[in-house]
Amino acid sequence: MYLPKRFIDLAARLGGLPGIGPKAADRLVFYLLDQSEEDVQELADALVAARKEIRFCRQCGNFTQDDLCEVCQDVSRETQLLCVVEEIRDLAAIERTGAYHGLYYVLHGRIDPIARVGPAELQLNLLTERVVAGHIREVIIATNPNFNGDITAMYIAKLLMPMGVRVTRIATGIPKGSDLEFADMFTLTQALEKRTDVET
Amino acid sequence: MYLPKRFIDLAARLGGLPGIGPKAADRLVFYLLDQSEEDVQELADALVAARKEIRFCRQCGNFTQDDLCEVCQDVSRETQLLCVVEEIRDLAAIERTGAYHGLYYVLHGRIDPIARVGPAELQLNLLTERVVAGHIREVIIATNPNFNGDITAMYIAKLLMPMGVRVTRIATGIPKGSDLEFADMFTLTQALEKRTDVET
Repeated sequence: MYLPKRFIDLAARLGGLPGIGPKAADRLVFYLLDQSEEDVQELADALVAARKEIRFCRQCGNFTQDDLCEVCQDVSRETQLLCVVEEIRDLAAIERTGAYHGLYYVLHGRIDPIARVGPAELQLNLLTERVVAGHIREVIIATNPNFNGDITAMYIAKLLMPMGVRVTRIATGIPKGSDLEFADMFTLTQALEKRTDVET
Repeated sequence: MYLPKRFIDLAARLGGLPGIGPKAADRLVFYLLDQSEEDVQELADALVAARKEIRFCRQCGNFTQDDLCEVCQDVSRETQLLCVVEEIRDLAAIERTGAYHGLYYVLHGRIDPIARVGPAELQLNLLTERVVAGHIREVIIATNPNFNGDITAMYIAKLLMPMGVRVTRIATGIPKGSDLEFADMFTLTQALEKRTDVET
């Protein structure tokens, strides 16, 4: 106990955050104690303000400080195209590509038989209401291409297809820039099965 | 701009901290928004309290919430043994070994000719006063074994030796558990020159 209690307390809290180990936490405290009181106060205020003011978009489940999120408020979006994702971080990943211009629906979860999460926990009635009320033309299911994501996709597809909406699934295959020799056998099998004609 | 302003602001602040890149910052914000308001408030309070209440020990320059730090207040310490380090993080590294039971003097810097930091900037008169007033028997200079640390050590040694105190320098050599073949030539040269007799 060669360091004051406040130091140890802050380091323990920072060390409990994801991706920050005990050594990195100590280094952060050393750094923060070297900053001005104003800067540290501003960081603390930013933490509290973010947690207090950020909520879920009423329409799509994205983060927002308002009633509707930036995406739902954006009038340039294709409003008849809906992308279903498991988490907001997946929405963020898709937005970073700049390749998608439709709207979203965030499930905030997935069907997970081992964790006993079934369709009932996902409030899928909000999704079906949205598809009807939003005159959605196509639903792109972008849940993760793993066991839970795939069964979630299958369940949602079966739920929505009778409603006359086009339901698609993001493509799986060999990632761009990677090597065939390092691809796992399931991915490589999928890539062979879902091969596409070469366009010249 | 698919995420609210508060999110982006907090992620930018966290991403400005050492060891936290933009992706890790985003992940931290996602995590923090998933915690209770109370937990985030407590983290913010811990930040502000640490910065406000932690100051430098009047005697040795370590962090403390009091006038004297935990080490200086510890009556079980060898009070005639003084270890000089550049920064508090060096003191922390030595404390973690559990191998040292004396007191410390933190320079909060080092002589650095390129950055135009000379002996005058280090307030070494506080060190000499301490050596006299503390009846110090031995001063272990544990500045870093690099160019700036070595000239700082040399300067301090020349300053203190006329005062009749024993002045020592931490050993340099091949780190325990490492391979000779990967040691740099300066370290290996030092390790040869400073070889010690084998005790059986």
